[in-house]
Amino acid sequence: MLDENKFSTIKDILREMNTVDIARVISDSAAEQQVKIFRLLPKDSSAEVFTYLEPETQQTVINSITNTEIHNLVEDMFIDDAVDFLEEVPANIVTRVLAQTSKETRDTINKFLSYPDDSAGSIMTVEMAAFHVSVTVDEAIEELRRTAQDKESIETCYCIDDFRKLVGSVSLRKLIVAKSGTLLGDIMLNDDRLISVKTYDDRETVAEIVRKYDLLSVPVVDTEGRLVGIITIDDIVDVIQEENTEDFEKMALLLPSEDDYLKTGVLKLTKNRIVWLLILMISATFTGQIIEGFQDKLAAVSGLTACIPMLMDTGGNAGNQVSTLIIRGLALGTIKPSDYLKVLWKEIRVAVICGSVLSVANFIRMIIIRFVTGGSTTTPVFFVVCLSMIFAVMLAKSIGCTLPILAKLVHLDPALMAGPMITTIVDAASLLIYFGIAGIFISHGLI
Amino acid sequence: MLDENKFSTIKDILREMNTVDIARVISDSAAEQQVKIFRLLPKDSSAEVFTYLEPETQQTVINSITNTEIHNLVEDMFIDDAVDFLEEVPANIVTRVLAQTSKETRDTINKFLSYPDDSAGSIMTVEMAAFHVSVTVDEAIEELRRTAQDKESIETCYCIDDFRKLVGSVSLRKLIVAKSGTLLGDIMLNDDRLISVKTYDDRETVAEIVRKYDLLSVPVVDTEGRLVGIITIDDIVDVIQEENTEDFEKMALLLPSEDDYLKTGVLKLTKNRIVWLLILMISATFTGQIIEGFQDKLAAVSGLTACIPMLMDTGGNAGNQVSTLIIRGLALGTIKPSDYLKVLWKEIRVAVICGSVLSVANFIRMIIIRFVTGGSTTTPVFFVVCLSMIFAVMLAKSIGCTLPILAKLVHLDPALMAGPMITTIVDAASLLIYFGIAGIFISHGLI
Repeated sequence: MLDENKFSTIKDILREMNTVDIARVISDSAAEQQVKIFRLLPKDSSAEVFTYLEPETQQTVINSITNTEIHNLVEDMFIDDAVDFLEEVPANIVTRVLAQTSKETRDTINKFLSYPDDSAGSIMTVEMAAFHVSVTVDEAIEELRRTAQDKESIETCYCIDDFRKLVGSVSLRKLIVAKSGTLLGDIMLNDDRLISVKTYDDRETVAEIVRKYDLLSVPVVDTEGRLVGIITIDDIVDVIQEENTEDFEKMALLLPSEDDYLKTGVLKLTKNRIVWLLILMISATFTGQIIEGFQDKLAAVSGLTACIPMLMDTGGNAGNQVSTLIIRGLALGTIKPSDYLKVLWKEIRVAVICGSVLSVANFIRMIIIRFVTGGSTTTPVFFVVCLSMIFAVMLAKSIGCTLPILAKLVHLDPALMAGPMITTIVDAASLLIYFGIAGIFISHGLI
Repeated sequence: MLDENKFSTIKDILREMNTVDIARVISDSAAEQQVKIFRLLPKDSSAEVFTYLEPETQQTVINSITNTEIHNLVEDMFIDDAVDFLEEVPANIVTRVLAQTSKETRDTINKFLSYPDDSAGSIMTVEMAAFHVSVTVDEAIEELRRTAQDKESIETCYCIDDFRKLVGSVSLRKLIVAKSGTLLGDIMLNDDRLISVKTYDDRETVAEIVRKYDLLSVPVVDTEGRLVGIITIDDIVDVIQEENTEDFEKMALLLPSEDDYLKTGVLKLTKNRIVWLLILMISATFTGQIIEGFQDKLAAVSGLTACIPMLMDTGGNAGNQVSTLIIRGLALGTIKPSDYLKVLWKEIRVAVICGSVLSVANFIRMIIIRFVTGGSTTTPVFFVVCLSMIFAVMLAKSIGCTLPILAKLVHLDPALMAGPMITTIVDAASLLIYFGIAGIFISHGLI
């Protein structure tokens, strides 16, 4: 339709569409059409659509519109969206955009850009509804009716004193049901019931608070307790998903990355992976040396070598299961480092049962395999393997619950103590147990 | 203070506290004190505090209060909270509670209890603000002022036609800024801009929609398009965290469990873990047989056995990294099965670089180890190991990106194709490559 210049039909269609969907359509279009469609948007929704565009599309649009259009666009955007956008584009575009904004907006944006990446300040917005405590509900509603268009969230209004200090909050619901003439100060939530965060609080902490108290928004105060902004729950949902993705990545020993997989180059992907692969590969030197030292006996007793991978894998899997549970529990706050002894005791009991069941199953498995393939492995070797299995599982479960909690205690990220890391450590430990038990059997002439 | 009967002081303290915090205090108290504190709560907050109590505490409270108190409590609770509570307690308590509720509430609760566990219907609430399209904004605001107290969310009001069909939505913000006398039908969002879900939609799908469109609530309609409830974002946040936890558990090959780790018994924990441990242990039969078949050559050539764990671990880690990225991408919708060829081609290139770097590093490592320990492994064996490494990494990356996508295509959960599963498959494959290459070198008399 663009080619046929049916602009008014397009305009009508766009008016019926959700801004998120419009943004997707624009991002999926050819570069030369993106700006055309963007210019056909109704004035009042172009800023919102812009915030949902892919960063590359945002650049294309910015590069093709006039300075006046840039000015209007940025002034219409919520500050936090403008900051998100500016953080993604090259410096020359940032300079051009900031040159077109009013001094006031520019100052606010610059202040936001200075907050650390993971702080509450970096995801807050300043377009909130704030009133002095001595304002009446009627005055507040009147004011909201005039200014609601420019606020990101008016579901909760915040009350401040003469020094802009945050002293309470009133939900819009409470505001509209309140009797005419009531002062905000008389109906606001305050004291312990008022939840707020500080600009430099970690955004993960903020997400935890919003989730715990089922908030739609949380006020952000500076070190003096003055209200500087709010964080809305839609941004929190994104934070939660990003933090989860980061945990998934760390647990697979990847360097966390915020880029989409499909848009990340091969070299970047390699860089995110190679560090830990190298470290773990070099750590495997230990397992190699342990086997090297036992080489002669391995060659002498049939069946010992063939069971190495099974023992190592089972140990690794058992350790991985518990470390995942503990890492997740620590992240969600359901397990605290002080629970360590409780956790360890539970794991030892689980390990005894798991290890025993696995041993019995394994014994049967080995008998069947010998029967089917006619292998020459003797029954005492089976006992060595099964006994090692129980101890390996116990050790794996103990290491798997200890390392994440230890990491938490020394302020490392517990997520690093997941599967691959546990496997590498458990591998060496299971081999030592295995060869230790085999050594005892050999020295007593049992195998 | 309870022991000293300072009830009015406690009441004052409770009045200043956030309901979530009160619930924590009660849950942490001794059983005989829980009911005492609960009864001191202000009338208007006891239902809300109750919804935040631990299930065991809820039972204790229910068992100790009168039938009239139960009646008032349940009628004051939002339906979705009452349903959550009833799903957690034994059948005899459910019967007693339902006997105390009004017929209308009981019917609604029963209807909710019949929705499948993971459906939109099971997490929705019926306490929403809904108006006929022909209502004016003034009438709507008037109605809200009277009834807002009983609604779970009034941030968005929904418009219905004569047949209760959902036809549009109006945000509270739009409502209060609208000119007096305007009809809801004239300012509502409709057509493509109105997002809704169906009662039987998967709650994960609902979470995805809420996240994508930055909604505070989403309307739920039945198969005929009639409005039956809404889902609010605070419940969505919980769904997102639960779904993430489930993915973490599946990726560690645990049976997903909704119980807190610390509260789960040893037998239950064992049950959640043993199934996959057994399956994977038995699968390791293949690796064992592969080694068994190569046993003589392993014994003859020094150094071959010692490198098995390193090769297997590196392959497993390499596969684990990519499968985690793909599983997460599939879950968040950033990767689609149709992207498979793009993904595979990317992974092959990453694997060539990763594999080469690892090989070179490994070669140097082995030279150093031989120099330090005076081992007898010959340099051609190093070449066998390093060559196998490149191929093993390539294979691991290919398997790691293929299996999750394949699982998605056949409607299995991609999360099952994570680390442990990949490791087991990659182990066998790397050994075949390793022994294949070693076999060629041996048959040419090179090692």
